[in-house]
Amino acid sequence: MGEFELIRQFFAAASCAQVGEGVALGIGDDCALLELPAGEQLAISTDTLVAGVHFPDSADPFLLGQRALGVSVSDLAAMGATPVGFTLALTLPGAEASWLEAFARGLDQMAQRCAIRLIGGDTTRGPLSLTLTVFGRVPSGMALTRKGAQAGDLLCVGGELGDAAGALPLVLGQRRADSAQAAALLARYWSPLPQLELGLALRGKATAALDISDGLLADCGHIAAASGVALLIEQARVPLSEALRTQVGDTEALQCALSGGDDYRLAFTLPPEHLADMQLAGLPVQVIGRVAAGQGVTLLDAQGQPVEPPRRGYQHFGSASD
Amino acid sequence: MGEFELIRQFFAAASCAQVGEGVALGIGDDCALLELPAGEQLAISTDTLVAGVHFPDSADPFLLGQRALGVSVSDLAAMGATPVGFTLALTLPGAEASWLEAFARGLDQMAQRCAIRLIGGDTTRGPLSLTLTVFGRVPSGMALTRKGAQAGDLLCVGGELGDAAGALPLVLGQRRADSAQAAALLARYWSPLPQLELGLALRGKATAALDISDGLLADCGHIAAASGVALLIEQARVPLSEALRTQVGDTEALQCALSGGDDYRLAFTLPPEHLADMQLAGLPVQVIGRVAAGQGVTLLDAQGQPVEPPRRGYQHFGSASD
Repeated sequence: MGEFELIRQFFAAASCAQVGEGVALGIGDDCALLELPAGEQLAISTDTLVAGVHFPDSADPFLLGQRALGVSVSDLAAMGATPVGFTLALTLPGAEASWLEAFARGLDQMAQRCAIRLIGGDTTRGPLSLTLTVFGRVPSGMALTRKGAQAGDLLCVGGELGDAAGALPLVLGQRRADSAQAAALLARYWSPLPQLELGLALRGKATAALDISDGLLADCGHIAAASGVALLIEQARVPLSEALRTQVGDTEALQCALSGGDDYRLAFTLPPEHLADMQLAGLPVQVIGRVAAGQGVTLLDAQGQPVEPPRRGYQHFGSASD
Repeated sequence: MGEFELIRQFFAAASCAQVGEGVALGIGDDCALLELPAGEQLAISTDTLVAGVHFPDSADPFLLGQRALGVSVSDLAAMGATPVGFTLALTLPGAEASWLEAFARGLDQMAQRCAIRLIGGDTTRGPLSLTLTVFGRVPSGMALTRKGAQAGDLLCVGGELGDAAGALPLVLGQRRADSAQAAALLARYWSPLPQLELGLALRGKATAALDISDGLLADCGHIAAASGVALLIEQARVPLSEALRTQVGDTEALQCALSGGDDYRLAFTLPPEHLADMQLAGLPVQVIGRVAAGQGVTLLDAQGQPVEPPRRGYQHFGSASD
């Protein structure tokens, strides 16, 4: 038996690989088999992470396992879907037991948190990269898409933005991670927790939604384009963490939040009548602006006047979009 | 707009990317949405092909597109599933228009032949590799798996074996492809046509099935292990093409068929009472042996005596399993 066959058996034995609800057949045959309750649709998303492009070659394998799955499941949260299963296509230069063990442990921990099962995949030899395909279920017609935002809706996000972008110099070893603030930012980068509960709560209420991967401005641009509306963002309302402001200062913190990406928090448009209920339910709903007739994304200053967004240079590892 | 965003739009505009039966939402949102008729299960398989490992870096992009999708859809055929959709995760060193155009054309041509739609994916920068995840539907409980072969069943394959393995020296440029025979072998390597019709016909009849990717002996070993039976293969019954025998001689032709891999034809176990109907229906069902109590795979000579399978050396690009 070859070393890659051993890897396959290793993953098949992982605790997140057991057959269960919605998974009729898991790892080990030509295909896995999923079941879907009547009246539901299957939401599907694929993401690739390449070493040297999306993460450093020397990345801690435990953290990489957590991050790879968290990033992918975030797309299910953005649709208001409930996680069911995922496949893992893992390309590796060789089979190093300690690396694989730590990677699988990180993957498994995130899988438990998201209640998602490993149902299949492929293991191949080559330059290190990972492709995850995630599956979730959502009642037919209830999925949250980017299309549907209406003039008059509030523009909201699911919490503080920019932490992951602020962590990049730490991830790359360009700054020292020697403070509690730095540790907090690194945790947001390496362990993005998909906002699944929020996504479910937004079903039937939010008019459009996505998860922020490319940066708030770029991703709001996707909602504006798909919905045929204008999004107005009040700069002063963009939520920034204390950790980020302490670590990089107010100006750079705002840049990270607006253009940094890798947040994996939801951005969504919400008719005003739903706001109070959502906030009373303790959901992380923060209003940052509103939807208007028109097109594109406009940033507003404290006086409500349009301002140019601050420019950021090219960020290595700075976005999952390339 | 970056070059990789342009690639995404290019694929989104491909003819195989249009929303249709079973696909409620295609490319362009956080997730695609699939619908499944009541009483059906979704079959899912993921395969990765890495340049320099599974195909030469210089591979013709049109042929690569055909082969990548054909290889993946073959897993649906092996389960008796009807193709619905697929995702494509494409990692590329850069965006070269002529390469992409030819690749997409090959992919699209195979997608039309298999009646499968491109529903999503990811495009990233990095060393050339492709991960395809394919989706098919199959009535609940009717999927063909590797488990279920019974003593007394016939062991069958879906046609001549070994052609793709025999084409490898041509693919790698180690032998010249200057004959009709060579062209026939190359076609079997680059354009493996999934045996979808055969897979559907085997539903409720075959007791176990898979598609041959690692070589007849290795893959029959998977059926034997999963089903807890012995498989006996009569060497003289293994079907070999005239093209293969002419190109490499009888001895090497048999080696290619037994251990070469990359056939993407079905191997399956069939109760004898179903054989006549299948053959009368014009399906490519060739009996090569039988199922018995016991374990493992045994090769038999013309006198019914066990023989050692011929050994083959390591084959670069010789198997999709690594």
